[in-house]
Amino acid sequence: MTGRTDPCTPLDAREVEDWFAETDVLVVGYGGAGACAALEADASGADVVLLEVASAGGGTTALSGGQIYLGGGTPIQRACGFEDTREAMEAYIRIAAGANADLEKIRVYCEESLTHFDWLVAQGVVFNPEYYGGKHTNTPEYQSLCWSGNEKGWRESQAAKPAPRAHKPKAFWEDGGATLMATLRAAVERTRIRVEPDTRALTLIRENGRIVGALCRRDGAQRAFRARRGVVLACGGFIMNRDMVAKYAPRLVDGAPLGSPHDDGSGILMGIGAGGAALNMSEGFVSVIWYPDGVFCEGVFVNEQGQRFVNEDCYHARGGHHCLNQTGRKAYMVVDDAIYTKPPLYSAAEVREVGESFEELEQAAGFPAGTLSATMATYNRFAAKGEDPLFHKHRDFLRPLDRPPYALLDFSIDTGIFYPAFTLGGLDTTIDGEVRTPTGERIPGLYAAGRTAAGVPRSGEGYASGMSVGDATFFGRRAGRAAAAAR
Amino acid sequence: MTGRTDPCTPLDAREVEDWFAETDVLVVGYGGAGACAALEADASGADVVLLEVASAGGGTTALSGGQIYLGGGTPIQRACGFEDTREAMEAYIRIAAGANADLEKIRVYCEESLTHFDWLVAQGVVFNPEYYGGKHTNTPEYQSLCWSGNEKGWRESQAAKPAPRAHKPKAFWEDGGATLMATLRAAVERTRIRVEPDTRALTLIRENGRIVGALCRRDGAQRAFRARRGVVLACGGFIMNRDMVAKYAPRLVDGAPLGSPHDDGSGILMGIGAGGAALNMSEGFVSVIWYPDGVFCEGVFVNEQGQRFVNEDCYHARGGHHCLNQTGRKAYMVVDDAIYTKPPLYSAAEVREVGESFEELEQAAGFPAGTLSATMATYNRFAAKGEDPLFHKHRDFLRPLDRPPYALLDFSIDTGIFYPAFTLGGLDTTIDGEVRTPTGERIPGLYAAGRTAAGVPRSGEGYASGMSVGDATFFGRRAGRAAAAAR
Repeated sequence: MTGRTDPCTPLDAREVEDWFAETDVLVVGYGGAGACAALEADASGADVVLLEVASAGGGTTALSGGQIYLGGGTPIQRACGFEDTREAMEAYIRIAAGANADLEKIRVYCEESLTHFDWLVAQGVVFNPEYYGGKHTNTPEYQSLCWSGNEKGWRESQAAKPAPRAHKPKAFWEDGGATLMATLRAAVERTRIRVEPDTRALTLIRENGRIVGALCRRDGAQRAFRARRGVVLACGGFIMNRDMVAKYAPRLVDGAPLGSPHDDGSGILMGIGAGGAALNMSEGFVSVIWYPDGVFCEGVFVNEQGQRFVNEDCYHARGGHHCLNQTGRKAYMVVDDAIYTKPPLYSAAEVREVGESFEELEQAAGFPAGTLSATMATYNRFAAKGEDPLFHKHRDFLRPLDRPPYALLDFSIDTGIFYPAFTLGGLDTTIDGEVRTPTGERIPGLYAAGRTAAGVPRSGEGYASGMSVGDATFFGRRAGRAAAAAR
Repeated sequence: MTGRTDPCTPLDAREVEDWFAETDVLVVGYGGAGACAALEADASGADVVLLEVASAGGGTTALSGGQIYLGGGTPIQRACGFEDTREAMEAYIRIAAGANADLEKIRVYCEESLTHFDWLVAQGVVFNPEYYGGKHTNTPEYQSLCWSGNEKGWRESQAAKPAPRAHKPKAFWEDGGATLMATLRAAVERTRIRVEPDTRALTLIRENGRIVGALCRRDGAQRAFRARRGVVLACGGFIMNRDMVAKYAPRLVDGAPLGSPHDDGSGILMGIGAGGAALNMSEGFVSVIWYPDGVFCEGVFVNEQGQRFVNEDCYHARGGHHCLNQTGRKAYMVVDDAIYTKPPLYSAAEVREVGESFEELEQAAGFPAGTLSATMATYNRFAAKGEDPLFHKHRDFLRPLDRPPYALLDFSIDTGIFYPAFTLGGLDTTIDGEVRTPTGERIPGLYAAGRTAAGVPRSGEGYASGMSVGDATFFGRRAGRAAAAAR
């Protein structure tokens, strides 16, 4: 065995002197994608080894809020009184994924959403048929169902009948991800899956053009794991690899990395090294959060031109996207005395200026005369009629801001407020998780899922909570099944 | 020899039964980058074979306007009365390249700009010391020097003293690129460089981890070319490969592909197949053009919210970038009777509405009341003072639009007007053209230049004419020298 550890350089199997372990399916990474891949490979009758670099399974899924984007009329949706269809879900996700959408993945994800719900329940995941209807980043207590994207947005709702689709395993507030992973770990423990913690995959092993294993570091030594049928890379994204972020997604550099320390891009690098194409690499979730509570959705975002730029009731990743796109990355929110009591929960946006009138606020804050004040006059005039012809904010959040004093909250990223970010680029895979080269050839023996792959969520602007964990668990399962069936 | 032709799968040298030709440096692609790589490799004493898929050299450079971004006080700049410094040029290009900038490439490009000018002249390139100061896409006659970017823009000019830096070889109007390539072809013909036209590179050939040649198709047969020192990929970008554009740069899909038919991404794919990282793949030049003549820079761009979004005197790629970023990709220009005679030369933007007042125009065109009219009132009020506090248009183009009737020209991409596009993503290379893996390892024997590489121009929003041909010729030379020196 050589001492090399470059993830981009697969090891030739002929260089392996002895194999530390051998299995049918080798899954690299024990987060949501890896757990589901392992479970399905095991259920298919394959021997499975599940590697994890940390001391226990969990990954970034365990750190997430745990929402899973499911729809088409799940038992939870129906119990809470919501109708949904596969078609509506698919139409919405296509808009959400934007120009980079993988239509084939979206199609199968929606077609099999109810089946995926059932499978999760069969693994022990408990969904609580309670609905939370407020504007929040998650359900604040034990409710399982909530809105998590832009489904009720003007453009989206014209194309697709809205329904809440974020399904959080029963857990308090943001504990959904930890609960989900605890449940999946328990499911894994009921199987023959061999879990190998504290094991870092260094590079893939190749034999005659086929991926046949991974070279790992474990107990200070290099160990080769052989996979007779396939290797599933489920090692997360790359937000923690600052060099990769600077190279591939520089727009995310100033965001607060949201992930586990092991979102280091190693899975993507190993996949590229094996010949895989990396797609959507510049895209990422980047957010700024002005709710809860929903009252701040009654505020008005303006840029340094004093112009509006987004519907303020949108999902926070859309807000973050647009705040970062304004000149100088400057973004402010105008509020009135009726809604301002304290800064929003997640963004301690500070008051930059106050004024008894919009003209006074405009002048005090240094906006050119006639800009902010004209924006607010137009906004208020239409809001009084329950209309927002510019950005189509929902009438639930439309109220003229007419109770002075007025304040300008600073949401610019250079204030240091929370702009969480994670990556949405990864390996190009088929709907069965097979990694493809840039010319579309499949790489025998190699699979990827979760944020190691470019999946259903492709756009920060269109992201909805639950899309990443939904994609990871769903396509993790498919990758595990496909790897188990490979010969 | 096998029949395979996947560019992403390098051929093992052991599979080569006989070599059709052998040389020191093999240059793939006879555009600006390839010609310069070949010339410098030859000048270094290496044997050079220069492959071209078409029947003659020229490539996309020959189709371009031929501007070369040079500065720091070139003889042409000085003859025309302009001062410039390396520092100013570097500061400007750093802003232009944006977040994705390769600072090392920018540094050496600026440091050696005068040397590059001299080298081009030594090859026979003639620059005509005449300056054209108008707002145009190129010099309209035989002048060699003009402004070609956002140097005089507010933000840029604060950071870097402006100077015109587009240097067009002496030629009429847009004939600069054809003239440049005719000159470089003549230079090549004076050397020992062996040009092989009608030869398509299919895939690279690898031996013990080193790139040692390329398998090509020629006269209907597969032919292996061996390179003792290095292979330089100079095969252009990928705007003509619609599958790659959809995968990597979907934002450019609806643009009019600007390039030669051979900008098919084959060089990038071959480089990826050999282990090279591809960077900046989602970025591209995309433009909409509202000048000449400059009078339309006195117009006011508005989006469907009736808001301004850009300084209308900016370079056309910045305009195209922002027009595409507006909601619904809708963009309009407000003009008055003083400037509107016929549509701009390159964009036959049609009149969508006319009105005797801005209120009438607003209503007729369906803008919400108080939007377009407020925008224009503010614009005119400041323009009368020679100010544009919102977007800082230069005072040369600031004039109140006060001569009715007013018209709204439709610049939206869905009108079918000209939105030319080309790609700015490619292989990650060192300043010597060495192709790097995603972890930064050099791939022995492999070099890239021109739009096959991710070079100095990285951002459509910040692009200036001459940056791509400048980068291609400059880093083509460096790649050729480095390959010739490799052992």
